[in-house]
Amino acid sequence: MSETLQTPRTTVRRLAGRGSYDRELIHGILDEAFICHVGFVAGGAPVVIPTIHWREGETLYFHGSAASRMLRSMRDGAEVCVTVTLLDGLVLARSAFHHSMNYRSAVVIGRAREVTGEEKLRALTALVEHVCRGRSAEVRPPNEIELQQTLVLALPIEEASAKVRTGGAVDDEEDHALPVWAGVLPLRTVPQEPIADVRLDPAVAVPEYVKHYTRRGR
Amino acid sequence: MSETLQTPRTTVRRLAGRGSYDRELIHGILDEAFICHVGFVAGGAPVVIPTIHWREGETLYFHGSAASRMLRSMRDGAEVCVTVTLLDGLVLARSAFHHSMNYRSAVVIGRAREVTGEEKLRALTALVEHVCRGRSAEVRPPNEIELQQTLVLALPIEEASAKVRTGGAVDDEEDHALPVWAGVLPLRTVPQEPIADVRLDPAVAVPEYVKHYTRRGR
Repeated sequence: MSETLQTPRTTVRRLAGRGSYDRELIHGILDEAFICHVGFVAGGAPVVIPTIHWREGETLYFHGSAASRMLRSMRDGAEVCVTVTLLDGLVLARSAFHHSMNYRSAVVIGRAREVTGEEKLRALTALVEHVCRGRSAEVRPPNEIELQQTLVLALPIEEASAKVRTGGAVDDEEDHALPVWAGVLPLRTVPQEPIADVRLDPAVAVPEYVKHYTRRGR
Repeated sequence: MSETLQTPRTTVRRLAGRGSYDRELIHGILDEAFICHVGFVAGGAPVVIPTIHWREGETLYFHGSAASRMLRSMRDGAEVCVTVTLLDGLVLARSAFHHSMNYRSAVVIGRAREVTGEEKLRALTALVEHVCRGRSAEVRPPNEIELQQTLVLALPIEEASAKVRTGGAVDDEEDHALPVWAGVLPLRTVPQEPIADVRLDPAVAVPEYVKHYTRRGR
């Protein structure tokens, strides 16, 4: 299997030095993100909708109501562009022009297929595991009616790219003399104190995977 | 001025009860987010690119290299769909099916125009203020060459919608008996310790707006 996911359509054009087509890097970005933005064309116009995604091997999964416009477009074979962005920090330079952001983004393009039968159940189990590793064995699995109401789609991760900026401010040489603070303000998505359901049995402890929440891909 | 930004094209279809067209709510979501995902159609196919945006009044601004494919598409009058998503928490239910997320998203659709002259300078100042209130007076403003290299675009916030989920898990009545932890794991974007530039003059203190970083819209 090729390690690169570069195709003419996924070649990064702007700041190409930040571009990468490395399978492992792209998988890591997809795994760490909670949501993606799915772009599709509806009646000639662009539509961008946020949704949760998850990955198993070389496949990106999506799900939702069988009545969803986005999922119906995807199921009917429309081309989609799925973009995931992790913001890592604000880069503050001595000049307005050189301000920037540290980020890792991934773009996957292609056409999805509907997932059914055994793969559908497996994919929905993997979704719970993606959100909280270990939780799928505890919760009530989907019943027949819930499965019918849920559409699961699979997009092969075959054409993709990543774009990454890291590091500090890059100022013009002469601007270093300015008495202006420069540097990076790192940003992180941090879990806060869990809030138990009002009807939770007090005998049920907060699971370890909630208490010490960590992301796959980190 | 109408308080609603609802049009047939911005009417939320899925889980319509979560939809809103309230100008103030939409502005607040746009202001709090660091990045948006801009969707446009290129050669019939959808493209979704992350970028920074900022708002002044009823206008959403974007900027970047004059060579950017996204900005060129926008400048040439292509229709765009700009989506912003703030993830507020993971909602863990007793059944796999009822897992959800708390979020606030906004979608703005329309066509952009290029910004020039005085408005361009004002918009770029507002961008620095959007990232760090108070910083625009400290940094070196853009020079003529930098202004020429930068394209600034304005999208009127006239057709838009928001979608918001808040609150706890909504489980089926009979599932409350299950001995499964349920609740919300809130997520926040949290600034970490600032990292000073390696060449920073040690006499330059960390500004208050970096030390106690807060977002407009919060």
